[in-house]
Amino acid sequence: MPAFSRLIRFLAKDGHVYYGDAILPAGINDIAKATKAKVIKGDIFGQHRVTEQIAEVKLLLAPLARKDIRTVRCLGLNYEQHAKESNMPIPKYPVLFYKPITSTAGPTDDIPVPVMAQEGEGLDYECELVIIIGKEAKDVSESKALDYVLGYSVGNDVSHRDWQLKRGGGQWGLGKSFDGWAPFGPGIASSALIRDPNALRITTKLNGREVQSSSTKDMIFHVAQTVSFLSQGTTLSPGDLIFTGTPQGVGMGRKPALWLRDGDKVEVSLEGVGSCVNKVVFDKPSAKL
Amino acid sequence: MPAFSRLIRFLAKDGHVYYGDAILPAGINDIAKATKAKVIKGDIFGQHRVTEQIAEVKLLLAPLARKDIRTVRCLGLNYEQHAKESNMPIPKYPVLFYKPITSTAGPTDDIPVPVMAQEGEGLDYECELVIIIGKEAKDVSESKALDYVLGYSVGNDVSHRDWQLKRGGGQWGLGKSFDGWAPFGPGIASSALIRDPNALRITTKLNGREVQSSSTKDMIFHVAQTVSFLSQGTTLSPGDLIFTGTPQGVGMGRKPALWLRDGDKVEVSLEGVGSCVNKVVFDKPSAKL
Repeated sequence: MPAFSRLIRFLAKDGHVYYGDAILPAGINDIAKATKAKVIKGDIFGQHRVTEQIAEVKLLLAPLARKDIRTVRCLGLNYEQHAKESNMPIPKYPVLFYKPITSTAGPTDDIPVPVMAQEGEGLDYECELVIIIGKEAKDVSESKALDYVLGYSVGNDVSHRDWQLKRGGGQWGLGKSFDGWAPFGPGIASSALIRDPNALRITTKLNGREVQSSSTKDMIFHVAQTVSFLSQGTTLSPGDLIFTGTPQGVGMGRKPALWLRDGDKVEVSLEGVGSCVNKVVFDKPSAKL
Repeated sequence: MPAFSRLIRFLAKDGHVYYGDAILPAGINDIAKATKAKVIKGDIFGQHRVTEQIAEVKLLLAPLARKDIRTVRCLGLNYEQHAKESNMPIPKYPVLFYKPITSTAGPTDDIPVPVMAQEGEGLDYECELVIIIGKEAKDVSESKALDYVLGYSVGNDVSHRDWQLKRGGGQWGLGKSFDGWAPFGPGIASSALIRDPNALRITTKLNGREVQSSSTKDMIFHVAQTVSFLSQGTTLSPGDLIFTGTPQGVGMGRKPALWLRDGDKVEVSLEGVGSCVNKVVFDKPSAKL
C-alpha cells in the first residue's frame, strides 16, 4: 500500500531531484499544479515514507525515472467509439503492443519528431489512462487485479500512422516507438485515491482546442479486466506501465484528418490526475537513414 | 570494448553467481560446454576486468540478469525463405515487435506453457541470432553500427500461432510474451570474436531432429542494417536485446504443421556461440482466465 496520495518526481528549487507527495492548492486536483511536495524517502515500490520535509517544485519530471520503468505495454482499440472511427471490429481480446522504455518522457517534455517520422502524413495524438503496476502480479483474477496497481497517470501514445499502419508490416511498433513518444504524468494518483478508474473524464486539447473528450467508462476492457488478462502466464512487474488505449477523436479519425505539426501544443488530461502538456518539435534534418 | 571473449553468467560450485569469461576445452566453440570461467568484476557495460580467479560452472544462467535487460526488440519475417513459408511478402522495412523483460530466460530453463496457450494449436519454435547492445546508440550509420554491439547470443522466440495471428487483433505481442518465452544464451560471444555476424550457421533441433537449418547470411536486414535502422530517432540502450528473426523450418511452415508438445526438448544453436536446450513444460490447469 503506497504511503502517498499523489506521487510526483521533480526537480526542486534546492537543485535536488526528489520523489514527493504533491501538495495541491485547495479545490485543485490537477497534479501539474503542485508547487510544493512532501519529500518521500525509500523505495516507491517497497518500504517508503512521506516525510515532513517540504520541497518547492521547480519542474515536474516523468513520475518514474526510466531506470525504474520496466516493460511498457499498450492496448489498441480499447474504446468502442475509437474502434469504430478506425474502421476496426471490436476486439474480442485486448490488442497488445509495446513501446520501449526510451519512449517514456515527462509531463512537460517536448515530443521530438525524428526526420524519418516527418515524411508522409500521420503524426497523431492519443490520450490514455496509464496504469502503473506496484507489485508483482501473475494469474490474478479481475476481483483482485486492482490490488496490484500503484496508481494512475495520463499519457500520450504518440503515433505516426504511416509508419504504424503502412510501413511496419502490420506491426504497430515502428510508428509508436521513437524517443519521447510516450510522455506521461503529471504524477501518479494512488489507487486508494482513484477507487474507480473507469469513471474518469479523459480529454485532449490541441493548441487549446478540445479534440478528444470521453470517459474511461467507455473502455472495452476495463482496468481490472486488463490487468487480469495481461497477467495470465505473464508476470507483471513493479514499474511496468500499461497504456490502456485512446477514445475517439484522434487525428486519423477526423474528416479531414488532423495531423500534428512542428510547434503544436498537445494537452492530455485525466480527471483526478491532471494534465501533460507537450510541444511537438521537429528534429533538424542532420540524421538520415 | 568488452574485456571478455565469451561472457557467461553462472551459478558456480562455490554457491555464488558470477559473470565470467568462459574457458572452453580445446577445439570447442559451444559456450554451453564451459566448465570453468575467469570471474569478471565490474560493470559489464562499463568498467570491468577479467580477473585470474577461476570458478567452476555448476549451472549457466541467462547471460544477462533480468535487472540488466532493458527493452527486448524482435524482428519478424527477416529471412527470405521464412517470409515465403509464412506466405508473407518480403518486407520493405524491418518488421518490429517487442517481448517483455519477463519473457527472457536462461539457456537450460524450461519453457512454461500457461493454460491459455495450451488451447488451440500452434506452439512453435524460432531460432534467432540475438544482438546485445553494449553502448547507447542513436541515429548511427550502418558502417558504425557494429561498434555499439556487445556481442551475440542465440535465442528462441517461442510463439503460439493462434494467439499471435488469430486472437491478437493482428498484433503479435499476445502470442509471444509469456514468462520464459525468450530463452537466450548460452553466453554472449563478443563482437570482437564474431567479426561477421551474417555468416553463421543457425539451427533448431526438436527432440534431436533438425527442423531449422540456415545461415544468418540469408537475413533480409543484416545485423548492421538492423541496428542502424532501429536507432533512427530511437536510443538503443546497453542491455537492449534484439532478436533478429528466424529462418525457414518453423512448425507453422511445415506440412503437416509441427507443434511443440509437453515434454519436448528444443535446441537452438548458432555457430561460434553455442546452444540453448529448453524443455517445454505445460503448466497445471490451476490458473484460469
